[in-house]
Amino acid sequence: MTDIALIEAAAARLKGHARRTPLLSSPFLDDIAGRRVFVKAECLQHTGSFKFRGGWSAVSALDPATRARGVIAFSSGNHAQGVAFAARQHGVPSVIVMPTDAPALKIDNTRALGAEVILYDRATEDRDAIGTRLAADRGLTLIKPFDDPQVIAGQGTTGLEIAEQAAEEGVTGADVLVCCGGGGLTSGIALALEARAPGLRARPCEPAGFDDVTRSLASGRIERNAALTGSICDAIITPQPGNLTFPILHRLCGPGLVVSDREALQAMALAFLRLKIVLEPGGAVALAAALFRRDQIEGEAVIAVASGGNVDAAQFRAALDLLPG
Amino acid sequence: MTDIALIEAAAARLKGHARRTPLLSSPFLDDIAGRRVFVKAECLQHTGSFKFRGGWSAVSALDPATRARGVIAFSSGNHAQGVAFAARQHGVPSVIVMPTDAPALKIDNTRALGAEVILYDRATEDRDAIGTRLAADRGLTLIKPFDDPQVIAGQGTTGLEIAEQAAEEGVTGADVLVCCGGGGLTSGIALALEARAPGLRARPCEPAGFDDVTRSLASGRIERNAALTGSICDAIITPQPGNLTFPILHRLCGPGLVVSDREALQAMALAFLRLKIVLEPGGAVALAAALFRRDQIEGEAVIAVASGGNVDAAQFRAALDLLPG
Repeated sequence: MTDIALIEAAAARLKGHARRTPLLSSPFLDDIAGRRVFVKAECLQHTGSFKFRGGWSAVSALDPATRARGVIAFSSGNHAQGVAFAARQHGVPSVIVMPTDAPALKIDNTRALGAEVILYDRATEDRDAIGTRLAADRGLTLIKPFDDPQVIAGQGTTGLEIAEQAAEEGVTGADVLVCCGGGGLTSGIALALEARAPGLRARPCEPAGFDDVTRSLASGRIERNAALTGSICDAIITPQPGNLTFPILHRLCGPGLVVSDREALQAMALAFLRLKIVLEPGGAVALAAALFRRDQIEGEAVIAVASGGNVDAAQFRAALDLLPG
Repeated sequence: MTDIALIEAAAARLKGHARRTPLLSSPFLDDIAGRRVFVKAECLQHTGSFKFRGGWSAVSALDPATRARGVIAFSSGNHAQGVAFAARQHGVPSVIVMPTDAPALKIDNTRALGAEVILYDRATEDRDAIGTRLAADRGLTLIKPFDDPQVIAGQGTTGLEIAEQAAEEGVTGADVLVCCGGGGLTSGIALALEARAPGLRARPCEPAGFDDVTRSLASGRIERNAALTGSICDAIITPQPGNLTFPILHRLCGPGLVVSDREALQAMALAFLRLKIVLEPGGAVALAAALFRRDQIEGEAVIAVASGGNVDAAQFRAALDLLPG
């Protein structure tokens, strides 16, 4: 199980490899939110999202002989790039299993980061069967996207940094809003804050219609999403909270916050204008909640984790279109 | 005169107020440049550019009684916002003198950062006379944009950070490319590197047609630009190098590098795609030189200072239009 000791150990392994991302702010965002707003810019992490932390943590935690045989992941998104780059930096092979209809740019990027990409047909092939066979044949270790203690520990290193950076800013009480899919980042941060900054409370943020974690926290048991497509926040759409992450979320996190796709785009536009960072929709929902759900936030300050920036030009233009002029 | 002691003193005053901006990188940019590329992301500095450092340095260096009367600056751009915010953070008044045809957004932003904005008509009024009268009437201190020892010292704190961060990355020899207008940032960085990282050499980067510093370094005397408008890199267009900055540039800097407006836009697009940062054209010329002038760079690595990100949506769209898809 992930605990603060596992997170501290992951931080020691990540030191000098993952970036300590900055905590940004702007008086213009403070005015919109009605309180001090800080943004933990994980879009500036290697591969453009926090996923590199979990990937590095998991790869580096393997015993050397196991690691040398390589790792495998199922992902067409940020987890793919995080695992691929972490494996390359360790000098070990990685296999990423992606659907044939994944965007060509994501396939190319993942290959360029050193991975062997195996494509499968969603309609006719069984992803898990392909992965299981490959893993067995080559002795690869599967790196899950969130329901893995070392992955959660890696994401939790974000929380250690938030605790330190909040203290540097003199912030002792705040809501820490986290873009939440399966809950790896949110649960890791919650564990780190419990130990290092108990006045800071993690809260998951989700797109409307895909608020499985928010509903699960409200009901006290794992709830599923009715659909898995239909939001531009694709990076954080998962069927349901993880079996490892949900108990942590349930024990430590405040109520979830839900924003619309349009609010996520507005937050992207404001991050462009006021912070000079590039966010993808799924990486902007926490900032959107900080800016547009002020009545649901209690802390004197709010810290929004901007979890990723892997957005294409067309989608970014849609955000810019919301700015005046 | 600015020297390393003055820069170290400025760094002590800026500590806890200016951001230590990250040094970013991407294997995709390394591939384009044919060497390791690091980007010092000063677009993430307060007010969106390095100018906050010089503004803070100058305001904080004033004796308290003088500072309390306030400061004045002539600028419609990044210097205006940097001085205004630095003054507000010190709790003292600032007056920014801008032309009536400055973009409304820049006027509004400067006011929102706490400045009193005085508008003048470029055709019928004398900016310097207005400024001199205001300064005399109210006892305001003029903060020049670059030709001021404390401003140069403040910009030089960027160089101290580059020296530290390069060492952390194991880089001991590199060309440090700097977007250059009047030369405050370039000369400050050059002084810091001379003292703290002598294997790193600062080089000014300019837009084609406005390469006064490059030509001045080549001829050994101050050369002027033929025109002052006609480049999208407006943030770094000045008539000529400063009287204080040029001797430093001449003594310490390698040859200048010149890029086209289109190359600056391409660098903005690649910074969006690979680094997840927002650059303005004038803040992207150093990265453009790193990527597109590889034959003119000697170091095994290159460090490009991304000096600012205050760009409007229309101009950013022009950069995104250069990306495939």
